[in-house]
Amino acid sequence: MKQDLLKRENQNEDDNLQEPDVQKELQQIRIGILGFGTVGTGVYRIINQHQDDLQSQTGSQISIDKILVNSLDKLRSVDINPDLLTTDPNDVLQDPDIDIVVEVMGGVTEAREYIAQALKLKKHVVTANKDLIASYGGELLSLANENGCDLFYEASVAGGIPILRGLGEGFSSDRITKMLGILNGTTNYMLSKMAQEGMDYDTCLKQAQDLGYAEADPTSDVEGLDAARKIAILGTLGYHTEISLDEVDVLGISSIDQKDVQYGKEFGYELKLLGIADRQEDEIELSVQPTFIKKSHPLAHVDGVYNAVYVHGESVGETMFYGPGAGEMPTATAITSDLVTVVKNIKLGVNGRGKVAPYNIKKMKPKERRYQRYFVRLIVQDESGVMATIAESLSKYDMSISNMVQKPLEDQQAEIVIITHKASLSALESWKGSINSLNPTMKLASYYPVEGGE
Amino acid sequence: MKQDLLKRENQNEDDNLQEPDVQKELQQIRIGILGFGTVGTGVYRIINQHQDDLQSQTGSQISIDKILVNSLDKLRSVDINPDLLTTDPNDVLQDPDIDIVVEVMGGVTEAREYIAQALKLKKHVVTANKDLIASYGGELLSLANENGCDLFYEASVAGGIPILRGLGEGFSSDRITKMLGILNGTTNYMLSKMAQEGMDYDTCLKQAQDLGYAEADPTSDVEGLDAARKIAILGTLGYHTEISLDEVDVLGISSIDQKDVQYGKEFGYELKLLGIADRQEDEIELSVQPTFIKKSHPLAHVDGVYNAVYVHGESVGETMFYGPGAGEMPTATAITSDLVTVVKNIKLGVNGRGKVAPYNIKKMKPKERRYQRYFVRLIVQDESGVMATIAESLSKYDMSISNMVQKPLEDQQAEIVIITHKASLSALESWKGSINSLNPTMKLASYYPVEGGE
Repeated sequence: MKQDLLKRENQNEDDNLQEPDVQKELQQIRIGILGFGTVGTGVYRIINQHQDDLQSQTGSQISIDKILVNSLDKLRSVDINPDLLTTDPNDVLQDPDIDIVVEVMGGVTEAREYIAQALKLKKHVVTANKDLIASYGGELLSLANENGCDLFYEASVAGGIPILRGLGEGFSSDRITKMLGILNGTTNYMLSKMAQEGMDYDTCLKQAQDLGYAEADPTSDVEGLDAARKIAILGTLGYHTEISLDEVDVLGISSIDQKDVQYGKEFGYELKLLGIADRQEDEIELSVQPTFIKKSHPLAHVDGVYNAVYVHGESVGETMFYGPGAGEMPTATAITSDLVTVVKNIKLGVNGRGKVAPYNIKKMKPKERRYQRYFVRLIVQDESGVMATIAESLSKYDMSISNMVQKPLEDQQAEIVIITHKASLSALESWKGSINSLNPTMKLASYYPVEGGE
Repeated sequence: MKQDLLKRENQNEDDNLQEPDVQKELQQIRIGILGFGTVGTGVYRIINQHQDDLQSQTGSQISIDKILVNSLDKLRSVDINPDLLTTDPNDVLQDPDIDIVVEVMGGVTEAREYIAQALKLKKHVVTANKDLIASYGGELLSLANENGCDLFYEASVAGGIPILRGLGEGFSSDRITKMLGILNGTTNYMLSKMAQEGMDYDTCLKQAQDLGYAEADPTSDVEGLDAARKIAILGTLGYHTEISLDEVDVLGISSIDQKDVQYGKEFGYELKLLGIADRQEDEIELSVQPTFIKKSHPLAHVDGVYNAVYVHGESVGETMFYGPGAGEMPTATAITSDLVTVVKNIKLGVNGRGKVAPYNIKKMKPKERRYQRYFVRLIVQDESGVMATIAESLSKYDMSISNMVQKPLEDQQAEIVIITHKASLSALESWKGSINSLNPTMKLASYYPVEGGE
């Protein structure tokens, strides 16, 4: 058995090596890292801890040769040879011995410039930078292509979950019709707390900040911008057309009322901040918004800081990928797995040649054809005939009621919570605009899309 | 935008083509299919329905040229040119124009022979045959390697879920420590019914058979053999060592008592038939057995005929892949995505060179070090001192009680349900053997491992 193994291993090595005379020599692959925060440190850890495995998998010795840092004197959580550190990006970008550049510095302007420079110097690039890829992915992928270089970015969406590979390879033969993603751990943590412990928004945010899950300025997370970047990247890959960030309708969670979370639960729904990419025929729509999903939906049980991407394909049907959406080691795993692919490609001599460029012409779906069910909460005067008035007003805009509950409030007011049948976004907006003129005492307190059902 | 797209697409094509003078010509890839049951029909459907997409992704025209069938006269659910059908395997295997053979005939002896023959004739192979891969995967992969051919088998584990890609590529840089799989849709459907509707085993089986989820002879599903083959394949890939089927401890669901399912629920657990692959240090253990998992575990909500594989990696942490484990179109999607990879490899000229052969020496973990928590149900005479006797007997074998509940039965008997702390498998077996001599009126009604916790 052991001999068998060795025999097969050697055969494999023989086949993989380009030149027979270097058969016994391990190829040396040199890496430069731009940025040495938590994720950069994680990549350093994995490459050092898993060196044997990486070597067995790639037939190469992978070493980190240079790391761009902000400050040489900063205390680090790993023991590192100070000679590896530099504050000059050119020490990484211009070093002819460096084969692959890992960009984990974040930000857009400098990262874009450095990556472009690396690609022009025929260095392969692995990045975790969703802001950059969502805005300049197409441009940089073209540049990589022109220079015969790999540019991989698995870590930019849903951290440790290999979803980009799943879409690009696992479902390459299928036609993806829908993607729903819990793509931001901070907001999912907050919504889980609101649902499970009845906390209000401000308390949740404070707690998330105390635990380090949310930043001091939480705007990008709670207003849905972070998730929007990720659904734009998923949409581009899944629908083979270049989606730009401004084509994603974005609504965050900052105005969510605890009441809605609890009313939704009564109807059997969980409120999640979903990135949604939908394609029917050739028309696509993309959004990020707090959305109610049925408890029986696989996404409904994704709680805390975890991420998940639900993918529906015409042939494969319903699938879901679940895992950690952020964090040092999960993100570093995605980056290092991309590195392994680059190294294998170097051995095979096929860098920059496996990618499929977007080939579909983009058609965004207009509001008139964007159908959804809605959860609607109204505050009304509790007087006879009010229900009839509401039902009538809805039917004027081709909307109708699927479920309804009325709750008494103080001062002879009442709350009416409705789940509608499917209605177009334009119908919802028109109806919304008409409420006030219909009855000046009636107030639309909130509304959310409801995923699934008729 | 449109121009940009076209520009990038063309660049990509330029780069991908091997020879400049065939730039405008689409490469023709010819496929032969062995077997034309539901899955074979699914592959035929996808290749015809998604021809445009497949062409855009691979730059090749993929056609099905020959299909091996049992009978030429059988009524088919797809319109098909009768000239494509043959009852002679040599019409597929010996046809020099056929580049790729898809094996979906099932069975082991003939499939093994035909695949070997195809590989020797330098044809790439895609198969969905878990029986074959679990028993002869190593041998056939070596043969593929020797002949510079691809041999892919994504469809053999968990149908439409791209889990083999996830392990082999997505987590290539990580060290997988644990895999837990709901790998058999039939038994998961039955256990879901037992848990949710309180049905007994026989009624569930009958229903599964009526719905076509279970075969007339359900042995392979209900006794865990089907799941064992899949966990052996996952273990081989995840731990980089060749696992053989007889190294998997197998226990099916046929002796499960409805009572245990309900008692487990009272403790907050769901009973699932799990394929388990565990690695600690260098020692591995593999099993298929009905196992209780906490309701908070992501696998606990995988119900009905769905499959899911939970993967824990040293760096990435907890992940899960969920989707349809069987069925015509999901399985066909996995096969056709493998076909896409083969076609891309043909264009790049790298077939048979991307695979990593198993490189770890195999060490199976002995029973003395296989630790688990256990759910144990005992039937006892309800007399004073019985609890002390049980606790004492457990402690003799270094076992201890974490949770316990006592339920009265008729005739002064009682049921005692215990969740233990972690104990070794050898301790459990020794304790089990000692029960009868301890107290002849005491009976061990059932026991199951409990996943997670201390």
